[in-house]
Amino acid sequence: MTDRSPVVLFAAKTERWEQYEGPLRTAFDAAGLGDATLTTEADPAEVDYIIYAPNSGLTDFTPFTRLKAVLNLWAGVEDVTGNPTLNVPLARMVDDGLTEGMVEWVTGHVLRHHLGMDTHIHGQDGVWRAGSAPPLARDRTVAVLGLGVLGAACARALSALNFRVLGWSRSAKSIDGIETAHGEDGLDATLRRAEIVVLLLPDTPATENTLNARTLALVPRGAVIVNPGRGPLIDDDALLQALDSGQVGHATLDVFRTEPLPPEHPYWAHPRVTVTPHIASETRPISAARVIAENIRRGEAGEPFLHLVDRGAGY
Amino acid sequence: MTDRSPVVLFAAKTERWEQYEGPLRTAFDAAGLGDATLTTEADPAEVDYIIYAPNSGLTDFTPFTRLKAVLNLWAGVEDVTGNPTLNVPLARMVDDGLTEGMVEWVTGHVLRHHLGMDTHIHGQDGVWRAGSAPPLARDRTVAVLGLGVLGAACARALSALNFRVLGWSRSAKSIDGIETAHGEDGLDATLRRAEIVVLLLPDTPATENTLNARTLALVPRGAVIVNPGRGPLIDDDALLQALDSGQVGHATLDVFRTEPLPPEHPYWAHPRVTVTPHIASETRPISAARVIAENIRRGEAGEPFLHLVDRGAGY
Repeated sequence: MTDRSPVVLFAAKTERWEQYEGPLRTAFDAAGLGDATLTTEADPAEVDYIIYAPNSGLTDFTPFTRLKAVLNLWAGVEDVTGNPTLNVPLARMVDDGLTEGMVEWVTGHVLRHHLGMDTHIHGQDGVWRAGSAPPLARDRTVAVLGLGVLGAACARALSALNFRVLGWSRSAKSIDGIETAHGEDGLDATLRRAEIVVLLLPDTPATENTLNARTLALVPRGAVIVNPGRGPLIDDDALLQALDSGQVGHATLDVFRTEPLPPEHPYWAHPRVTVTPHIASETRPISAARVIAENIRRGEAGEPFLHLVDRGAGY
Repeated sequence: MTDRSPVVLFAAKTERWEQYEGPLRTAFDAAGLGDATLTTEADPAEVDYIIYAPNSGLTDFTPFTRLKAVLNLWAGVEDVTGNPTLNVPLARMVDDGLTEGMVEWVTGHVLRHHLGMDTHIHGQDGVWRAGSAPPLARDRTVAVLGLGVLGAACARALSALNFRVLGWSRSAKSIDGIETAHGEDGLDATLRRAEIVVLLLPDTPATENTLNARTLALVPRGAVIVNPGRGPLIDDDALLQALDSGQVGHATLDVFRTEPLPPEHPYWAHPRVTVTPHIASETRPISAARVIAENIRRGEAGEPFLHLVDRGAGY
């Protein structure tokens, strides 16, 4: 331990402080950091750690001369990773609760589309729509694009429900029991078989518009797109065209280039689109506070930080 | 083997024959029953086995004097088990595809209610309904009433998704990793904790109206009822009252006392009810045909039949 108890600045919107202050103090105590100063206002020259939300308004890290690390409150770091004033380690949030929540949202919406639930949720009109059963999950192919912590967990959960899961990532990765592919050729081959496509790629220059007019033409006609990842992964105009033509059967979208999605955006009115308000995975304060406290404990003990961002790769 | 190849009567509606004839012939060949006669019309005195759908119209088994077994095409046997003219072994359908389909339907609808999907499926009106995340599945309690093949499989799948699963059955049963209870006291204790209740009990005199005015008052206010089991498990009037009062938050019902559910039934118009047309689990012909062929092979070889119904218990 250093000879001075650390000063931790909480830089996020006020409503976050209300959610996080209690869980953070509890987690600090449990991690042996009971002496730490946890505050929303401090002399920058005195701050050791920043718990950081990219929409906090803080963008100039220059005055923080003794800063040891920035601990992001969320998984997404695209709004901070390119910040030239940030010269200390940046850790992303890897929260068990966040992963579990994402698995639940993805599994739920994949099952919703697999089972054709909307026909019945919308069709409460007295018409008994008996018909042929959907195929079993073992005869349904789901592609998961992106095999980081979240993508791999979703791929495993879907596989446990018997779906035929195809995993894809830009660089080669393997997951026990999951058929994986990588690179441009691998993407095309994966999309050609995918009846449901789940996007869990990071938002980087290389992943922008992964689904575009060319790649959307590859999926089997009527395939479903589920995007709980990042808005820029999709070329919105190309998706709208594919929805209009029936090439894509439905899109359930949780993330957008502009959030909240403006009321006049054509996604809202499109009969084959479900907009959800960036809820697929929200960090839960209790578990997130534990992750942050553990990283501060490590910093004070001179141990390596967890979940460091590779600033070169952008994630 | 007996000295005469068996005569198998397929007693079900015409559309079933169209679905099953091919898969049955394939399965018979694979089971060494290539010589069997498979037919929809036969002299009753010549029939060895009946592949039976309770809605086939056949209710008098008296003329079938050399009958060895009745092989039910579906899991439900309540319409045949009390038939006094049936004096030979009765086997229910236990189809892997049927179990898998049920697990997928139940898991999908439990996740739908857990995640509050309907708010967004219905709410495509330009309003960004951000809000607090639902609890994680690990903080959501789901009761599965009925721990037969289907109930046990659903309980396991929900538990694998981290739900707190409470299993209940009339007589004591244990499932690895699932908290179980039984009997009347066990039912009350289970319902008092259940935020989502899944009904997978058999339809017997003892299970009729398991959910009634008294038991529906036990669940936490706003609990969700999911019934893919049998219609008579629920006192419909009591459920409608509980829905009107808000005691029950939603009911997703796949089975009814009268099917198709009549267009004038209040379930159709109730804003807190989703009617689905008995689709939670449908027997898939390919896998079902294999189960039937195996039972005929066993009968011919003098081996015990699989999946025999306990006619005294009614299931």
